[in-house]
Amino acid sequence: MQIVHSFQELRSARSQMSGTVGLVPTMGFLHEGHLSLVRAARAACDHVAVSIFVNPTQFGPKEDLANYPRDLDHDAALLEKAGVDLVWNPTPEEMYPQNYQTWVSVEDLTRPLEGGYRPGHFRGVTTVVAKLFNAVQPHKAFFGQKDAQQAAVIRQMVRDLSYPIEIVVCPIQREADGLAMSSRNTYLSPQERRAALVLSRSLFKARDAYTAGSRDAAALRQLVLDSLAQEPLANVQYVSCADFETLQEVDTLQHPALLSMAVYVGKTRLIDNVILG
Amino acid sequence: MQIVHSFQELRSARSQMSGTVGLVPTMGFLHEGHLSLVRAARAACDHVAVSIFVNPTQFGPKEDLANYPRDLDHDAALLEKAGVDLVWNPTPEEMYPQNYQTWVSVEDLTRPLEGGYRPGHFRGVTTVVAKLFNAVQPHKAFFGQKDAQQAAVIRQMVRDLSYPIEIVVCPIQREADGLAMSSRNTYLSPQERRAALVLSRSLFKARDAYTAGSRDAAALRQLVLDSLAQEPLANVQYVSCADFETLQEVDTLQHPALLSMAVYVGKTRLIDNVILG
Repeated sequence: MQIVHSFQELRSARSQMSGTVGLVPTMGFLHEGHLSLVRAARAACDHVAVSIFVNPTQFGPKEDLANYPRDLDHDAALLEKAGVDLVWNPTPEEMYPQNYQTWVSVEDLTRPLEGGYRPGHFRGVTTVVAKLFNAVQPHKAFFGQKDAQQAAVIRQMVRDLSYPIEIVVCPIQREADGLAMSSRNTYLSPQERRAALVLSRSLFKARDAYTAGSRDAAALRQLVLDSLAQEPLANVQYVSCADFETLQEVDTLQHPALLSMAVYVGKTRLIDNVILG
Repeated sequence: MQIVHSFQELRSARSQMSGTVGLVPTMGFLHEGHLSLVRAARAACDHVAVSIFVNPTQFGPKEDLANYPRDLDHDAALLEKAGVDLVWNPTPEEMYPQNYQTWVSVEDLTRPLEGGYRPGHFRGVTTVVAKLFNAVQPHKAFFGQKDAQQAAVIRQMVRDLSYPIEIVVCPIQREADGLAMSSRNTYLSPQERRAALVLSRSLFKARDAYTAGSRDAAALRQLVLDSLAQEPLANVQYVSCADFETLQEVDTLQHPALLSMAVYVGKTRLIDNVILG
């Protein structure tokens, strides 16, 4: 496994790959969720490249850029074991040099949900992912369903900007007790870690109600909100029941829907979701 | 020479090209300026692809999209003779399908000059060029110095978005009497065609003054304006003497400068420029 930092090293390494290349873009501090993406890439492509870059432009001014957890050595060991060919770990200065001034923006799909609470977040995501795609020129790229809106936005960007890249979205990986895996779980105190189970528990209750025949979106949202309200450490930012394709809130579930939430547990902002239908 | 329309045909044709690929993006109605780009591509690359697409998103609501001249058969004959391998002529519906919502924007460089008078123009240009780059994946792409700001904006986009593509900018091609070649010259009546010579004549006067030692930008702009004022059919939109890299207006010419203008001759908007230094 080769670890490169500069664009020049990346280009040289990429030019030596023949056959298909799968890219797994990450911000590092890898967990089983990332590794499931690597395994999917490994199974589908001749070569696997993983980028590790904590992208400053997708963090808001009051968000956790400085504190975001980093551990390149541990990440590299995990990726080596997982059979990755190439790790690209660029510096912020090389990704955003002086006089940087170009942005990729997806419009409608970035307005609701995360986009509503994190202005500029998706512009940072789509811009950096476009850069990763351009520099690596993968045939397939792998994203997690945990960041459901991100996956939808990237799919839209790929379609709109004519990238000849297949976007593969892999299921959420959860701890044994149901908590969706996230690098940000490391922020949680033991007490908050227990409290954080309310997210998945609430979503699973609503999924059970859906399976039992409930199709009223307001009722499903209220079921989730009532369940979240039982946890004093949880502070709800939003609970959404939206069309899976457009991410617009629905009244009645006829097509596949995304039931999603953002919840603060202490000072840590967590997101989770289930697909209904 | 193969002519393709759909993305699928393009991908199939592109996958059969080994070695380096040069792309010449055009809006068709080709003239000697375009053909000079094709020759440069032919000399530098194993394969040459030319896109012909009158891109609606770079035209303002009051601009000449509907009337923009088109002649695919004539274009194809010229390109075949010039040794082009592949012509890609997509439809607006395939380039901008329903629910299209992704844009590539370059900020600072698009604010002055053309960007100031044609709001949204460069967003349309950078977006379509990104799409052309993604779909064709060329090693080099060729643009004309006639659209000087466009060339600078594309260079910035390529640098910022990490495209592994070399941008080659070729000199302005002029008619024997000095008029810069442009598909829009076809709009000119015989009288306007004669009047349009005032653009290049004024620029050449200023270039002579520069060569003779003049370094005062205001004096050079005034020299051009005075010269343009002698032609009753010419209606000046702007005359600029700007830094060649930043496109910001300068006081004194120390670095290479771009002396440029937009002038209406009758109802036809013409642009022209010379590089000083």
